[in-house]
Amino acid sequence: MDRGGATLNDNAASVLALSGGIGGAKLVTGLARVLAPEQLLVVANTGDDFEHLGLTICPDLDTLMYTLAGVHDPAKGWGRAGDTWRFMTALAELGGETWFRLGDADLATHIERTCRLKAGESLSAVTADFCRRLGVATTLLPMSDQPVRTLVQTADTALPFQQYFVAQRCAPVVRGFSFQGADAARPLPAFMEALARRTLRAVIICPSNPFISIDPILALPGVHKALAACPAPVIAVSPVVGGRALKGPTAKMMRELGLPVTATTVARHYGALIHGYVLDHQDAAYVQDTDIPVCVTQTVMQNLDDKQTLARTVLAFADELARQPLRRAAVTNTRVTVEERS
Amino acid sequence: MDRGGATLNDNAASVLALSGGIGGAKLVTGLARVLAPEQLLVVANTGDDFEHLGLTICPDLDTLMYTLAGVHDPAKGWGRAGDTWRFMTALAELGGETWFRLGDADLATHIERTCRLKAGESLSAVTADFCRRLGVATTLLPMSDQPVRTLVQTADTALPFQQYFVAQRCAPVVRGFSFQGADAARPLPAFMEALARRTLRAVIICPSNPFISIDPILALPGVHKALAACPAPVIAVSPVVGGRALKGPTAKMMRELGLPVTATTVARHYGALIHGYVLDHQDAAYVQDTDIPVCVTQTVMQNLDDKQTLARTVLAFADELARQPLRRAAVTNTRVTVEERS
Repeated sequence: MDRGGATLNDNAASVLALSGGIGGAKLVTGLARVLAPEQLLVVANTGDDFEHLGLTICPDLDTLMYTLAGVHDPAKGWGRAGDTWRFMTALAELGGETWFRLGDADLATHIERTCRLKAGESLSAVTADFCRRLGVATTLLPMSDQPVRTLVQTADTALPFQQYFVAQRCAPVVRGFSFQGADAARPLPAFMEALARRTLRAVIICPSNPFISIDPILALPGVHKALAACPAPVIAVSPVVGGRALKGPTAKMMRELGLPVTATTVARHYGALIHGYVLDHQDAAYVQDTDIPVCVTQTVMQNLDDKQTLARTVLAFADELARQPLRRAAVTNTRVTVEERS
Repeated sequence: MDRGGATLNDNAASVLALSGGIGGAKLVTGLARVLAPEQLLVVANTGDDFEHLGLTICPDLDTLMYTLAGVHDPAKGWGRAGDTWRFMTALAELGGETWFRLGDADLATHIERTCRLKAGESLSAVTADFCRRLGVATTLLPMSDQPVRTLVQTADTALPFQQYFVAQRCAPVVRGFSFQGADAARPLPAFMEALARRTLRAVIICPSNPFISIDPILALPGVHKALAACPAPVIAVSPVVGGRALKGPTAKMMRELGLPVTATTVARHYGALIHGYVLDHQDAAYVQDTDIPVCVTQTVMQNLDDKQTLARTVLAFADELARQPLRRAAVTNTRVTVEERS
């Protein structure tokens, strides 16, 4: 049952996707459609996981799992399609905390996962079993089996991520981020094995928020180094299009951190980690600002066709890069991370 | 908020009802209709509480709470009216334990209660707050704030109550019962205060299963003695009518314990604890077997009128007994309890 240590099929050129929630899940959907299940390994951010109502909730992991299973709610970007809210209504009636909405069916994921974690199962084993039961053929891994919790540094305090994101609706001005527990957490073995594999075809950093969706993954011990040493092209897809983020607080965070809200900022953020960058036609003007290979295409994904097309484009771009010696950006890495881990 | 130590209005003659789930809840409904809220204190069995899916579930307490709030499901006898089952469906899909059914709205009670208990609130305080929020004016108390767990002794093993009752559908042959934790538990202070009050009008042992619904209450330290010393009439209402129990495994248990399945058996079980016994017209023949005052009436409650009528009859019987010196049964107490408490 424990597929935490599962490895990709050695005979298949394999693709590793690093992803947060909704934006990343769109590209992951495309990748899962154009690749065979054994050719794709998805590593999910768990920095926005939290304990709520006594339950361990893993928003990005669940968004990816539900999306890959085809049971996600595409309108909301989280939760299950057609879910109902009787639990929330009754919880409000009893004076419970209702700022984080949990659908009736979605609740089963959190309750069953919490039970199994308490019984000693690993998060990766639980995820693998849930995926199997939901018919997800792609391997979906949490970035780590140890808890990592993103804290959002504001002027006066460090807010737990969901407090900032959901309870306070991203209102506080952001000064930086820290990833509690990251130093002590271990990246999932299958993730690290994939990074070192000779047959690795590409690492794709999905169009997710770099600060809160990708940086927690990069903050795990050894990941940065393994990515830097990785034999395959590392490609990032910009989550910023035409000077704004398609979803979530990416643009607001950039402004508050004093960074230009452009696709280039994200490329610079990843800096020397990436070999290639994918940005939207709307941002073609920024190509001149980058000193790594760039692929200009349609990155906005409105339907399944868009997702598959972008997936194919990104893979073709990676394959093209792989045919020449890989070089990385010389730009300064502008990662903004408050070094307050505990 | 903590009404765990709440006391009855000293100016009101007060009635104390001891109850299990569905059968008892029917009479409690009647009592709550014919008495003012400050005249009634309901003490619920918590021996069938258990931990399931990481949640603390209190079936009898919830049945009483939902019934008093008018949100109960009268057809099932447990849970909330019109509840839905999306959570259960999703839980089954994920391979979770589905032998104990939890409705979507009902789940809020268990999740919120578990959170509050973990945060250090007492079960009585949580119950009081839930009751207030659900508009229950009657004071409903768990028998104790400390956990007591009924174990069903079978030929080979001692089964946790819900394992016996729900998972195994009462199939195993019963040899006896034990109440884990009862020795260390304290009866709720308001319960003991009420028992000693001069203005106590009556103690009513509801038509609940004597072995698994009432005995756990009687097993708490001091309760038996306080009941025996209680200045008010103690009246039991038979849960056995016409040689069968209206609900649940009472009759099956009696047979397996080698006891005749009659109303008299229940009276003998309570023995010297009770001053009066209420049984159904169908069991009038058994009157000659008891040496305490008996009230023969309709104990089957099919509608709200029946419940109120029985409540009034029981109260009138108690008042009549109170006008003469109270005497108790001389019959042998046949309580069957495996003395294996821990």
